Amino acid sequence: MELWYTEKHTENTGITLKVVDCLFGGRTKYQDIAILQSPEYGRVLLLDGLVMLTERDEFVYHEMIAHVPLLSHPNPRRVLIIGGGDGGTVREVLKHPSIEHIDLVEIDEMVIEKCREYFPYVSQGLDSPKVTIHVTDGIEFVRNAQSDYDVVIIDSSDPIGPGEGLFVESFYQSVSRILRENGLMVAQSESPFMHGHIIGPMYQKLSIVFPVSTMYLAFIPTYPSGCWSFAWCSKGGVTTPVDHLDTRRYEELQPGLKYYNPQVHRSSFNLPNFIREMLSNGSSL
Amino acid sequence: MELWYTEKHTENTGITLKVVDCLFGGRTKYQDIAILQSPEYGRVLLLDGLVMLTERDEFVYHEMIAHVPLLSHPNPRRVLIIGGGDGGTVREVLKHPSIEHIDLVEIDEMVIEKCREYFPYVSQGLDSPKVTIHVTDGIEFVRNAQSDYDVVIIDSSDPIGPGEGLFVESFYQSVSRILRENGLMVAQSESPFMHGHIIGPMYQKLSIVFPVSTMYLAFIPTYPSGCWSFAWCSKGGVTTPVDHLDTRRYEELQPGLKYYNPQVHRSSFNLPNFIREMLSNGSSL
Repeated sequence: MELWYTEKHTENTGITLKVVDCLFGGRTKYQDIAILQSPEYGRVLLLDGLVMLTERDEFVYHEMIAHVPLLSHPNPRRVLIIGGGDGGTVREVLKHPSIEHIDLVEIDEMVIEKCREYFPYVSQGLDSPKVTIHVTDGIEFVRNAQSDYDVVIIDSSDPIGPGEGLFVESFYQSVSRILRENGLMVAQSESPFMHGHIIGPMYQKLSIVFPVSTMYLAFIPTYPSGCWSFAWCSKGGVTTPVDHLDTRRYEELQPGLKYYNPQVHRSSFNLPNFIREMLSNGSSL
Repeated sequence: MELWYTEKHTENTGITLKVVDCLFGGRTKYQDIAILQSPEYGRVLLLDGLVMLTERDEFVYHEMIAHVPLLSHPNPRRVLIIGGGDGGTVREVLKHPSIEHIDLVEIDEMVIEKCREYFPYVSQGLDSPKVTIHVTDGIEFVRNAQSDYDVVIIDSSDPIGPGEGLFVESFYQSVSRILRENGLMVAQSESPFMHGHIIGPMYQKLSIVFPVSTMYLAFIPTYPSGCWSFAWCSKGGVTTPVDHLDTRRYEELQPGLKYYNPQVHRSSFNLPNFIREMLSNGSSL
């Protein structure tokens, strides 16, 4: 028997992966969780039937969502991560020697538990003494937070299901409130090739809340279209994504990055024409 | 009935597209040709069962394979295109006012015929008086060519089937011979996420033949992994891909480019760490 998992990215297209084992399947209050073993991508985490990460290509997403804001900031010490219960973003943030404390806010405890069990390489940072895990709603956490953060990372699922409230203006306002003067927010923001209808309104809201907001891109083979975007937003103290980009600080990171480097950082903000138009007038491809 | 076309990118993964109509299917001396109508990507050209282009995302490949070498060159006048019988690369090359002549060498006449019939927007440039079409083997053509070219573009299929001979050292030697002093060759070079076993040896050969060779990248959703690479090779007169990059010349192009701009040009050469390693030591992801 050959078993194939097919994820529809739209009604009309998708990706298909051969599967050799279904390691886990369960349902929480929030979502379906499944973990598959695939020959091409190793272990695969699915939430509500969508690929969240694979062992083989997770490095791109996690390096790019973490190192781009941290190396855009002059001296990041306190970081808040909303979502990201798999721990991959924490792992990357911990590579920066300036980091003193990370709050991780994951709504679904089982994501954390199962990633500790099946993705130990990804979740390895969750036990660091610098990390506090909060199993609660990210929107509530941000609304009630007193702390000041240097960087807030929105490592969310898509804006359907538990991630929905992380794409609304009032949430962005709350994030802005808990950022320090040089503070930055970065959020995953879907695929420009497939999700213009999400990206247009999302960046419109971001531009209302943040004095500076822009987009950067990365190649992620198992996400829809392979082209993934991230929103980079500043409270105003840092005026561009390269103000504080510093090769020396990159070289001080723990070695072994497979995707990120300062040239990739700089380049990832240079957008193809159709994406520039999407951000300026809300058009789709 | 729902009809889905699935292209396996490896034994273990692939892309799947809903299909509403099979517009054409045939076999030539060289390959199978099929043209499908899909709701997501419009018309799709398949050669030997692999997606060569779709109406919706062909702009990326054709803009990037044409404008990057042409705007790296100080004054491109004569261009040779090997493969590319669909005409998309010709369409883009013709947007440069300096171009005097294009030789297009396509081995399979039916590719040209069927693209004229089913992809008129792609093939529109084939009737230009600046274009001469040669229906013949590209390897033979280059071996016997007397002409001097400013830019040679290898717009080939994969190194299996008719494209195979376009990935060997003696072919690159022939191309080098017919390039002028400032001459450049660009060739599609597969996906770094999936084809390290092809890329390592290919770039090794290119580095033997050309004094300068490097890689650039583009997002192409319907190609394996969505991350596609191109080899940029210089006979030595032009020393880097940005020596002659000039915003004024970009602005003189016919308007309407959807992907390429000079910032994207510059950025596309900044490679993630694992790809740098692939080029330096032949490693795969």
